[in-house]
Amino acid sequence: MSENSTVTACCLIIGNEVLSGRTKDANLGWLAERLTDMGIRMAEARVIPDVEEVIIDAVNEAREKYTYVFTTGGIGPTHDDITSLCVAKAFGVEIYRNPEAKALLESFIPVERLNEARLKMADVPVGSTLIENPVSKAPGFQMGNVYVMAGVPSIMRAMFDGLAAGLVGGKKMESIAVASYLPEGTVAAPLGEIQDGHPNVEIGSYPFFRAGNFGCTLISRGTDMDELEAVAEEVRQMIIELGGEPINEDLITPAEVTNEKDY
Amino acid sequence: MSENSTVTACCLIIGNEVLSGRTKDANLGWLAERLTDMGIRMAEARVIPDVEEVIIDAVNEAREKYTYVFTTGGIGPTHDDITSLCVAKAFGVEIYRNPEAKALLESFIPVERLNEARLKMADVPVGSTLIENPVSKAPGFQMGNVYVMAGVPSIMRAMFDGLAAGLVGGKKMESIAVASYLPEGTVAAPLGEIQDGHPNVEIGSYPFFRAGNFGCTLISRGTDMDELEAVAEEVRQMIIELGGEPINEDLITPAEVTNEKDY
Repeated sequence: MSENSTVTACCLIIGNEVLSGRTKDANLGWLAERLTDMGIRMAEARVIPDVEEVIIDAVNEAREKYTYVFTTGGIGPTHDDITSLCVAKAFGVEIYRNPEAKALLESFIPVERLNEARLKMADVPVGSTLIENPVSKAPGFQMGNVYVMAGVPSIMRAMFDGLAAGLVGGKKMESIAVASYLPEGTVAAPLGEIQDGHPNVEIGSYPFFRAGNFGCTLISRGTDMDELEAVAEEVRQMIIELGGEPINEDLITPAEVTNEKDY
Repeated sequence: MSENSTVTACCLIIGNEVLSGRTKDANLGWLAERLTDMGIRMAEARVIPDVEEVIIDAVNEAREKYTYVFTTGGIGPTHDDITSLCVAKAFGVEIYRNPEAKALLESFIPVERLNEARLKMADVPVGSTLIENPVSKAPGFQMGNVYVMAGVPSIMRAMFDGLAAGLVGGKKMESIAVASYLPEGTVAAPLGEIQDGHPNVEIGSYPFFRAGNFGCTLISRGTDMDELEAVAEEVRQMIIELGGEPINEDLITPAEVTNEKDY
């Protein structure tokens, strides 16, 4: 893959509960799909604990390395919600109580319940821009190329939907999938040759199992649809030459993908 | 948290397909639960692409920093399966065709199908030990503190079940959960005080929504059960003092956890 003008992203999933296994992350896969659709390539994702130095280091490493950084988790009212503070420290700025964020909380939370812990959700780094939370008001924020969102999936998604228009994607990664009932080991060598002939296309092999038969889906990804079509045609020809039959990937029941394995 | 004698782990989920959103990772959550049960603390997880330098760097950083490293993905027969080679390079050793691994493949794959691509699955770093694959024979391997496993969930799990007996866990992280229908913002300040009084216990707050009511589960985690019991009792007292009622976490339908949000 040429890396020219590639727009990249890193997702930081922040929370001890994901690392302990108590909470199963539901944000990564959703963000990956959305970013891919927008021509933004998720180049890395990390799950990290609620530990100040770890969050600061991860934010600084990621914002340096990738076009966009998206964080989820750690912006609620309790003592373990330290993401906003850590992002401020990563940028070397203070946090302050944003009046607009405070007003949003006041519009949502009855005054007698708006204690200091809840008001903490209006504290954001100096120089940041708020990210709207249509579900429950307490906003996220954007600081430089870092977008700080809630961990609760419904809120994260609503926040992302709101901020997405402000992201600039690169050329969209298109893909063409060709499947067959030939196992991976049968297609591997000729497939590798096709890959060698097309360094701008990324060919992946994904085994599946359906109704007692093994096969694999061969996915070509790249930004040039003409080249993808050409690669897909080579893949189809290869399958036929190997005695298989190219089939439409849509025919493969997703639930059966990768439950068993042959080679 | 005192870090003394803490046994840590890092999981490296290797595969473009997870970063593009095509495949939803099913390994991280499972491994997190298993490791927690064994007294091994997952300190970080990364999803990284099938890119040689990225895999090598991640393996080297993780094996230096954590007690154990577990990788999933990239050990099949196709050109995009480069994990074994990368781990060898990370350790500065060659890969070679392991006779025992080759024999395993010969026992599973008919000789007429055992081509060079399939045999590649017997190539492991010099100095590594095989990890058994009871599902489909092609083994994983252990190299130093790095455990290289398949990406297919059923195989990864079977491999882990086999190697688990060889891992040495630390003191197991126990946890006690106390829930109530008080929202997070109400408990936040007194909960923070309880946390401040018990630096060896890690108290997390996890909001939930059930039948129109918001609440949160307060989970105390640590290795000293006596201290956990003491903390849980403080949490129960706090809930009562705030006008709430401590409830058994088991009563909360998991499906409703974190669908909506109040503070």
